Amino acid sequence: MTTIKDSVHDHISVDGVAADLLDTGPVQRLRRIAQLGTVKLVYPSANHTRFEHSLGVYHLADRALDSIGIGGVEAERVRAAALLHDIGHAPFSHNVEELVHRHTGLYHDDVSDLLVETEVGDVLEAHDLDPERIAGLIAGEGQYGQLVSGELDVDRMDYLVRDAHHTGVPYGTIDHERLVRELTFADGDLVLDEGNVQTAESLLMARALMTPTVYAHPVARISKAMLRRAVERLLATPDIDAGQVRRMDDYDLVSALRTEPATAEFAARYDRRDLFKRAVWAEYDDTPEALREADHEAVRELEAEIAERASVPADEVVLDVPGEPSMTESTSEVLVNGEIRRLGDHSPLVEGLRTAQKQQWRMGVYTVADATERVGKAAVDVLGLDVDGTLVSDVRRRVNASLDEFEAGAGR
Amino acid sequence: MTTIKDSVHDHISVDGVAADLLDTGPVQRLRRIAQLGTVKLVYPSANHTRFEHSLGVYHLADRALDSIGIGGVEAERVRAAALLHDIGHAPFSHNVEELVHRHTGLYHDDVSDLLVETEVGDVLEAHDLDPERIAGLIAGEGQYGQLVSGELDVDRMDYLVRDAHHTGVPYGTIDHERLVRELTFADGDLVLDEGNVQTAESLLMARALMTPTVYAHPVARISKAMLRRAVERLLATPDIDAGQVRRMDDYDLVSALRTEPATAEFAARYDRRDLFKRAVWAEYDDTPEALREADHEAVRELEAEIAERASVPADEVVLDVPGEPSMTESTSEVLVNGEIRRLGDHSPLVEGLRTAQKQQWRMGVYTVADATERVGKAAVDVLGLDVDGTLVSDVRRRVNASLDEFEAGAGR
Amino acid sequence: MTTIKDSVHDHISVDGVAADLLDTGPVQRLRRIAQLGTVKLVYPSANHTRFEHSLGVYHLADRALDSIGIGGVEAERVRAAALLHDIGHAPFSHNVEELVHRHTGLYHDDVSDLLVETEVGDVLEAHDLDPERIAGLIAGEGQYGQLVSGELDVDRMDYLVRDAHHTGVPYGTIDHERLVRELTFADGDLVLDEGNVQTAESLLMARALMTPTVYAHPVARISKAMLRRAVERLLATPDIDAGQVRRMDDYDLVSALRTEPATAEFAARYDRRDLFKRAVWAEYDDTPEALREADHEAVRELEAEIAERASVPADEVVLDVPGEPSMTESTSEVLVNGEIRRLGDHSPLVEGLRTAQKQQWRMGVYTVADATERVGKAAVDVLGLDVDGTLVSDVRRRVNASLDEFEAGAGR
Amino acid sequence: MTTIKDSVHDHISVDGVAADLLDTGPVQRLRRIAQLGTVKLVYPSANHTRFEHSLGVYHLADRALDSIGIGGVEAERVRAAALLHDIGHAPFSHNVEELVHRHTGLYHDDVSDLLVETEVGDVLEAHDLDPERIAGLIAGEGQYGQLVSGELDVDRMDYLVRDAHHTGVPYGTIDHERLVRELTFADGDLVLDEGNVQTAESLLMARALMTPTVYAHPVARISKAMLRRAVERLLATPDIDAGQVRRMDDYDLVSALRTEPATAEFAARYDRRDLFKRAVWAEYDDTPEALREADHEAVRELEAEIAERASVPADEVVLDVPGEPSMTESTSEVLVNGEIRRLGDHSPLVEGLRTAQKQQWRMGVYTVADATERVGKAAVDVLGLDVDGTLVSDVRRRVNASLDEFEAGAGR
Repeated sequence: MTTIKDSVHDHISVDGVAADLLDTGPVQRLRRIAQLGTVKLVYPSANHTRFEHSLGVYHLADRALDSIGIGGVEAERVRAAALLHDIGHAPFSHNVEELVHRHTGLYHDDVSDLLVETEVGDVLEAHDLDPERIAGLIAGEGQYGQLVSGELDVDRMDYLVRDAHHTGVPYGTIDHERLVRELTFADGDLVLDEGNVQTAESLLMARALMTPTVYAHPVARISKAMLRRAVERLLATPDIDAGQVRRMDDYDLVSALRTEPATAEFAARYDRRDLFKRAVWAEYDDTPEALREADHEAVRELEAEIAERASVPADEVVLDVPGEPSMTESTSEVLVNGEIRRLGDHSPLVEGLRTAQKQQWRMGVYTVADATERVGKAAVDVLGLDVDGTLVSDVRRRVNASLDEFEAGAGR
Repeated sequence: MTTIKDSVHDHISVDGVAADLLDTGPVQRLRRIAQLGTVKLVYPSANHTRFEHSLGVYHLADRALDSIGIGGVEAERVRAAALLHDIGHAPFSHNVEELVHRHTGLYHDDVSDLLVETEVGDVLEAHDLDPERIAGLIAGEGQYGQLVSGELDVDRMDYLVRDAHHTGVPYGTIDHERLVRELTFADGDLVLDEGNVQTAESLLMARALMTPTVYAHPVARISKAMLRRAVERLLATPDIDAGQVRRMDDYDLVSALRTEPATAEFAARYDRRDLFKRAVWAEYDDTPEALREADHEAVRELEAEIAERASVPADEVVLDVPGEPSMTESTSEVLVNGEIRRLGDHSPLVEGLRTAQKQQWRMGVYTVADATERVGKAAVDVLGLDVDGTLVSDVRRRVNASLDEFEAGAGR
Repeated sequence: MTTIKDSVHDHISVDGVAADLLDTGPVQRLRRIAQLGTVKLVYPSANHTRFEHSLGVYHLADRALDSIGIGGVEAERVRAAALLHDIGHAPFSHNVEELVHRHTGLYHDDVSDLLVETEVGDVLEAHDLDPERIAGLIAGEGQYGQLVSGELDVDRMDYLVRDAHHTGVPYGTIDHERLVRELTFADGDLVLDEGNVQTAESLLMARALMTPTVYAHPVARISKAMLRRAVERLLATPDIDAGQVRRMDDYDLVSALRTEPATAEFAARYDRRDLFKRAVWAEYDDTPEALREADHEAVRELEAEIAERASVPADEVVLDVPGEPSMTESTSEVLVNGEIRRLGDHSPLVEGLRTAQKQQWRMGVYTVADATERVGKAAVDVLGLDVDGTLVSDVRRRVNASLDEFEAGAGR
Repeated sequence: MTTIKDSVHDHISVDGVAADLLDTGPVQRLRRIAQLGTVKLVYPSANHTRFEHSLGVYHLADRALDSIGIGGVEAERVRAAALLHDIGHAPFSHNVEELVHRHTGLYHDDVSDLLVETEVGDVLEAHDLDPERIAGLIAGEGQYGQLVSGELDVDRMDYLVRDAHHTGVPYGTIDHERLVRELTFADGDLVLDEGNVQTAESLLMARALMTPTVYAHPVARISKAMLRRAVERLLATPDIDAGQVRRMDDYDLVSALRTEPATAEFAARYDRRDLFKRAVWAEYDDTPEALREADHEAVRELEAEIAERASVPADEVVLDVPGEPSMTESTSEVLVNGEIRRLGDHSPLVEGLRTAQKQQWRMGVYTVADATERVGKAAVDVLGLDVDGTLVSDVRRRVNASLDEFEAGAGR
């Protein structure tokens, strides 16, 4: 047994297949993937990694299994899946995930190939565990897959408290001990036991506060959009393909961006934290539906058009259109008077949070600091934004969706 | 200057009039008033007092004043009011407040008499501060009164984090540092500065989670209802009146309850934590409107009727009808794009929380453990509850409004 | 099973005999005994009780048993002893323990009578546990008694972290999780496993810092000495004997002190926190050996003599002579290269801490604020202090042995 | 003013010259220098950076200046120095510092060139601050230099709490608020005010526990020794010199090690956390004096000799001889009865800690896992270790100097 000290869960005991998996390259690689990607540019203490998070998820899974009373090979499979659930992440975690997916068809939880083809597969086999079943659990399949990836999975319990611990933002401080103890299965569904409507709501609220404050903080969005753009350029060079990027760690990617002439300027900007600024920051209802649904190609064309009209280089305009607001946790299930109820059907909060999410939604256009006015005007024209004759500086007033403007560079 | 170590805010420096007020009897008395009254029967660590809370409120007020830029005598008045804001509390804090009010017409923040007639008045005068103005601030009057008692007062910022620290329930962990830094005045109103809609929402959510989990936990409600009943009996004796109770500390009151024959049994029960159990726990819509609006007299009569029908002694039935749900924080104000907006008008969450509050509302009938079935049936009849023919045991299933059933005695 | 939320250990699950013991009067009484007695006059947040501490000790004992691999009735006995280990405490915990012992011959861990004669005995018998054996464990007898009361017991692990949490003084923040995991038995002795010399030292250092800062803070010592004096007077009245005091809770004692004319003034002083001040504060080497070894009677006589010479009432002089410095933890044992070694023999720190302890030792003479000079001079004469001709104000400069002078009343 | 959220000090306000320095390349580079270098291989959460530490040091310096009452340009200089104090660090912080020094003559606090030649110099000049004076403060020169680099500097106050927060090891949890408040100047020396002998001791004890547990954990020492060896090889290639390494960030260095054929194997080992193991772990008195004083060249020769005798490749043997134990804090000064006293003269603890330090001292010989026995025997011969005929496996038992064997790879 190995005991590991963790800043969130204190001592984590790792045993069985997990202890052997620890020493594999794909798991050790997670030490070099920042859990929150570019969020560290907003919250300087947020340097935690997918490795410590994976240990935390393993730990909570183990406690949940113990509390529910699941043992034997079933439990061993879940524990393996918990430790491995993030090995499919590309560098900077979610930041370039969409991009990698566009090229490879793989999301971070599509890990069959990694489980089979790497030394991880050998370890699993040595423990008589079928890689494909583990991959299934990681993808959320089957009854026990819900523990690893689902509305009430231990993944989000760990990341909320861990991200709170490392950013210093207290909103993620949920009662994870209670959550883990109250998990149970009813009719094959993972649910929270009687008396836990509010336990479920607390999880929802924590995410509702952490999202705008941390995960979708404007500076995080800008830096992420810039990173994505740089990686696209990297992929356009003959030397690197998306499959390779997927298996890089943060060091590889930063190094590649610095070395490749097409991305060196971005790398230098990133190192100096010299980020684009917002030229437009438009609310949901002010953003034409067509634009909200535009695909990757269409977005690229609009960016080019805006850049041209504003007379700035094409790669100095980034159009950042988030997807439609969603809320996985709303489908989490709770026992109420012996019946399984969807939280979204039972809790009046869910509707409120859903509306709030839409209210916080923002479409952004970013560019270099001294071009925001020009680009803002051009974007209003090109995108057909309904801000009748307002100056861009007015548009830019629409900034206050975010709870936190720490390192308030973006607002300047 | 005196420096005091606090478990929540670390070092608190007390200066000026506050340092002199510290040594007065009415302030020292707060050391012997439990912040959360009988909640300690649910959360054994919740033994914190109004004294440490008052120091915390003083500390946050001082920081807020500093951040807003208010100094001089104005600030000194607010600091005095912050330290003194709770000296009007009766023993066990809010637990017997209604009762004392019924007899004396005074709530805990009606403290003019205490400021004038006690040594507190001497200290204020020695510092050239008018007791009446301080009393006004404590009652929330005037522009600066909002800092001490209002939707965004520092009082609730302290108690949320302090109650979280001492109960171990993390839901109250708000970002009080940020709140204090973002307070400002606009048109004479205390508001949160631009970019703080979610800061305001976070305060609301913290209260929304702490209320059912801590403040209105069923066991806390039962013990509080029992205490209230006992104090009523105490007041019915010739020796003690409500004015005296108001100035007792917890030691005095416990001692009086133990000594007085009419309340000795309650005192013994309380010491053994041998509490009444729930016979009925009815939702808002299942509780007739007339009952929800019944006054004190009417409630007493209904209790007597239930007791008689169930053939139990009159003082073994407690009918506990909470007031209509309310949410002060919904009127807190935030700057949005330069305009003052009420949170309740701007945030879709407020409506959701309001509905949730109503959903969590419960009317309770409590009695001794072995009479719950009989009393439950009698109560259904007497109160005209709409539970068509269901057994009381079914009624008792309706228990799951509460997030936490720690020390789950009440559920047994 | 009952789950209890604790501010230090989060969720504590109580099961078996412990769950039944929870509901007994002697255990519930611990809710009303302040863990640190009058220390709350220095650290206003230190209102925690023997009840939450006892739950914590139970919890750590349970984890240690689990880690060592002890189960069955042996473990059940240890768990019962852990929960019950403090039921013999008089009000204000250690503050009046010596006094009660002088009259009853009983220390707080002499609890045979309580285990046999109260309802606790019934519960133990219902679980087939012999009260005498439990009493033995509480007194530290036998192999497993070391877990409950010994150099490495879980008692001190809980109180150090709990006292740190509630006072806000960080020095007690030991790694209790590690300590509990590293306990093991070797040749029947409870020892720390290989590689833990520093784990043991850390426990020692935590106590070495907490003692002067918290447990023996001058203001705590003064208030404790005053309380002891008041209780002596109470015992001198015909109505109350030491056996009764031993079974009171804090409410009873405070109430008795307020009611009894002979102690009413003390009670009023205590309520206003109007404490005696130091007239003399002498180092170990400046205190004559005879005085350091004086018994209770001799001390009383010296006090009377000082009072007389200073022309102050006899009960306004308190002579406070602590016992010889000791350090239980120095005999704690650690495995080093397969051998059991006493920490005191192995660690060079122990000697340093021992000397430091002696350096911090202070004999105090306390009196009312305006008599310190007179009483100081008289004490120098009567006690034969070697401060050749110095004024008492010089004597009083020798104040700075203490780390913390919070609520610096004592220094004024 | 910029406000930055920090996981340790919560909100940090950055103002004046510091706000402008924040945006410079040399300060932003600190985001990419791990505070504890390879310690993250032992404590997976220890991914914090020199950037957040520098902000913390700035924050504490600002509070200390405020508390002492220093303002104006003096204070502005100290704040600049605090923020800049670590910009001279090479990648992986202290890990390759000696090596860089051997080649460049510069330690991490020799930063004159960086202050003059980079954009930092421009910012300082724009604020009328002389770079040379700032460099002097960073080197600890002058009265105020003691605040930045001295026995009682705010640097160590920040790193102890920060390292504790991020590793999860509680021993560094000092009372930094109190330390900062108690700093004062006496006769031009930075001292702790009256009543703070134990405050000073607590700092000493924190370091005494953190050092073996964290900073000199065996696995940290092994990985650091391996890294040093690899960087030496890197410097032996024609392409990279020590001046360049000094200005790299962690990404540059890892990337260089991966790319350079001579170090690629190390890079691969590091990524898999496949570290050398201990072949010898000898106590101070068992290590010949000549060896303890051997210089770099001599050590290289001994390594070669051991490798040859054990028939392993030369670069698979690392001889790791720490310097003589030292304890800067022992010279820190405290006011005792109005006189400045050195802690080392006053506190009996210092001598104990000094002896403990020597007791914990270990000379190590490391090699690949399957050669430890052979290399151990060879080392015993070559180094003339006094372990008369013992098998190497016995030598290897001498492992227990360390408090923590987390991720116990080194012990396997």
